[in-house]
Amino acid sequence: MPQLTQTKTPHHVVIVGGGFAGLYAAKSLGNAPVRVTVVDKRNFHLFQPLLYQVATGSVSPADISSPLRGILNRQSNTKVLLDEVIDLDPKSKNIVLKGGVLSYDSLIMATGVSHHYFGNDQWKDIAPGLKTVEDALEMRRRIFAAFEAAEQETDPVKRQAWLTFVIVGGGPTGVELAGAIAELANQTLKQDFSNIDTTTAKILLIEGLDRVLPPFAPQLSSDAQKSLEDLGVTVLTKRMVTNIDETSVTIRNGDESEVIPARTALWAAGVKASRMGAVLSERTGAELDRSGRVTVEPDFTIKDNPDIFVVGDLACYLEEGAERPLPGVAPVAMQQGNYVAKLVRDRINGATTKPFSYSNMGSMAVIGQNKAVVDLNFIKFAGPLAWFVWIFAHIYYLIEFDNKLVVMIQWAWNYFTRNRGARIITGLEGNPIQAREAQSEQAKAASKV
Amino acid sequence: MPQLTQTKTPHHVVIVGGGFAGLYAAKSLGNAPVRVTVVDKRNFHLFQPLLYQVATGSVSPADISSPLRGILNRQSNTKVLLDEVIDLDPKSKNIVLKGGVLSYDSLIMATGVSHHYFGNDQWKDIAPGLKTVEDALEMRRRIFAAFEAAEQETDPVKRQAWLTFVIVGGGPTGVELAGAIAELANQTLKQDFSNIDTTTAKILLIEGLDRVLPPFAPQLSSDAQKSLEDLGVTVLTKRMVTNIDETSVTIRNGDESEVIPARTALWAAGVKASRMGAVLSERTGAELDRSGRVTVEPDFTIKDNPDIFVVGDLACYLEEGAERPLPGVAPVAMQQGNYVAKLVRDRINGATTKPFSYSNMGSMAVIGQNKAVVDLNFIKFAGPLAWFVWIFAHIYYLIEFDNKLVVMIQWAWNYFTRNRGARIITGLEGNPIQAREAQSEQAKAASKV
Repeated sequence: MPQLTQTKTPHHVVIVGGGFAGLYAAKSLGNAPVRVTVVDKRNFHLFQPLLYQVATGSVSPADISSPLRGILNRQSNTKVLLDEVIDLDPKSKNIVLKGGVLSYDSLIMATGVSHHYFGNDQWKDIAPGLKTVEDALEMRRRIFAAFEAAEQETDPVKRQAWLTFVIVGGGPTGVELAGAIAELANQTLKQDFSNIDTTTAKILLIEGLDRVLPPFAPQLSSDAQKSLEDLGVTVLTKRMVTNIDETSVTIRNGDESEVIPARTALWAAGVKASRMGAVLSERTGAELDRSGRVTVEPDFTIKDNPDIFVVGDLACYLEEGAERPLPGVAPVAMQQGNYVAKLVRDRINGATTKPFSYSNMGSMAVIGQNKAVVDLNFIKFAGPLAWFVWIFAHIYYLIEFDNKLVVMIQWAWNYFTRNRGARIITGLEGNPIQAREAQSEQAKAASKV
Repeated sequence: MPQLTQTKTPHHVVIVGGGFAGLYAAKSLGNAPVRVTVVDKRNFHLFQPLLYQVATGSVSPADISSPLRGILNRQSNTKVLLDEVIDLDPKSKNIVLKGGVLSYDSLIMATGVSHHYFGNDQWKDIAPGLKTVEDALEMRRRIFAAFEAAEQETDPVKRQAWLTFVIVGGGPTGVELAGAIAELANQTLKQDFSNIDTTTAKILLIEGLDRVLPPFAPQLSSDAQKSLEDLGVTVLTKRMVTNIDETSVTIRNGDESEVIPARTALWAAGVKASRMGAVLSERTGAELDRSGRVTVEPDFTIKDNPDIFVVGDLACYLEEGAERPLPGVAPVAMQQGNYVAKLVRDRINGATTKPFSYSNMGSMAVIGQNKAVVDLNFIKFAGPLAWFVWIFAHIYYLIEFDNKLVVMIQWAWNYFTRNRGARIITGLEGNPIQAREAQSEQAKAASKV
């Protein structure tokens, strides 16, 4: 039985969440004189920026996931615990897990966010969001089963509803989903069906504000919209979704309402803090923002709780002089994770730490093959070059974890063949129309429980 | 809307099942003056010989699956229908699908087999088999969650039960599973845990007959057993499994019974014909063998039903002078599928067809890295060369469908790094011990329904 190195070092850092923030914190503490425990309810780190590619059949879940134990197994001071946190007690410095109680000296909370349906939780089962591997497989199932159902449907009106895909939310995820589904319909699946012409599919992207990719520069938003329209996506801005049911999506434009018959609605609109936000607030008095994110001090601690840090999407972090909190994106999470790790190390060494300052390298979103927008602050551009920048930035970070060169080769292959080999429907079999009806019944039954 | 070529040609061949038999029949009919409909309840062909690699975290489901529409979309006479057959009427020449009725002129049934628990169906939820993608993911979940549970279990006896894996059945699937789990425990996961030494895991392979791989030559069986033992697998032959429950497996050796505490039992022992075997028997009077497979005429038709063919694992086919029916392996299914396609073409052309004769290229099974046994009839060998022959034979057939070169690269990568990137636990989250208990409760509740 291997001896645990951890027992020799006293200061125990518990990191809850193995996303970008938690994982970067853990990696930064690899050589520090502390023992580290990373708690996650999943056994893998998920490269969320590529999750839409799982949803649209380009790659498999494991291609964008890395087992946490594999990433961290060279750090002799670090332990991985597969468990779920349900509570904490700041006084006794304990967190309560499903499997027991764990004490900490420093606690780094990085449990992220989940979907937010803005008070319409009944839409959850009809319009799935995209945060987990299971979410992505559910989307994949629905997208490909919808084409199959259209193939079998003989009524032309019902058929068109199967061929209508409504994506709610014009941020990066919504834009990426809409672009990928348009490519499926117009390229990948074009030759595959006998009774339907997949190029007649309608892909609608609904955004409440006046442009897609609202955090980007206006020129890039309009470049992105043009690229989407070139792919056949209908972009509807300044529209609010007022209802979603099994067969339609209702959108409001000013005073007018429109009911769009659609069998597939995908949610990319809002996020709210994971449950730990509320728990932290209750136990420490921390303030939460509208989305339930935890308002933190400039050093990411909770007020009056210098040993509890909150980083990543779960944190509402306002830089000095900034109008808005930092966005919930991977680079912010990575830098915050690194920062608190350094702060913990400095505290132990009695050193002071410079204040946190987010180094914004820019932002980017991909629309489709050869189509992306990139804002590197000093330069903004769109088109094939942007697409290559996007590809290489993502590959770079992806292989950092697990040498996923295979993904790059898979992408190259997909690029030249325009193939999407992962368009298999799993977890659902038989007649797609019947399967969907059965699924709806189950969802209704579940929502009654 | 594309015009359906099918309506121009009169003779309608319906193929039920897109496995090796059905798919090869469909491909062989690609240029024939017939219209072809392939019915499957899944939208993909699954390369079953590699399913154990999904179960043990080497590759993803999509890596060994190809969308049926993608494989067949260049055949203008062929249509794919995603549906499930529930009945047939040989008199009116119709099959009944969940979504409607389909008429045929020639019917090729190739729906394969599922697991057989020899009258102990209560073992189904405790000891999953390996026939579908979902089965493989369930096995993967159980294998990796068992290591996680062992990591958390403090009682040494209970911990050892989590670290004990019992594989029931010493055929190729059982041998491959046992070898792969041994490599996981002794190599891949060795550095990953803090509280357990994964090399103390017990992997037991139980076989009822007197040797593993019973259809192979005795020398290869003993080579395989030696290779398994080198990897740390305990091979127990002439043992019958008499009970399986959530915490143990009971085996009988002659008059003695032994209870082995084990939290993971995997089923690789028996198969029985899919439900269509019984339906065919009821509707046509076809005889079934002990496993429910359909006894067919020398030309694969059912007696007195010259338009209904049964091929692949669903068929019980006795070659003239042979003692035993042909085994349920991919090469047999491919050749049978090709044969009946040729026979249908010949009938239309008024030509006669030579009787079927199985061309046995040999058999092989892989045990682990550099370890395999190959029997090419004229030569039998084991070891690294056998392993390379195995790899290339499988790659050859795999890329025939979908140019899955990526899989070869993935394998090469795994080979040199001894990594298994697909060891992610999906569909299950949080504390593994609690999750397993919850799963057991669900299984119990489900079995009561």
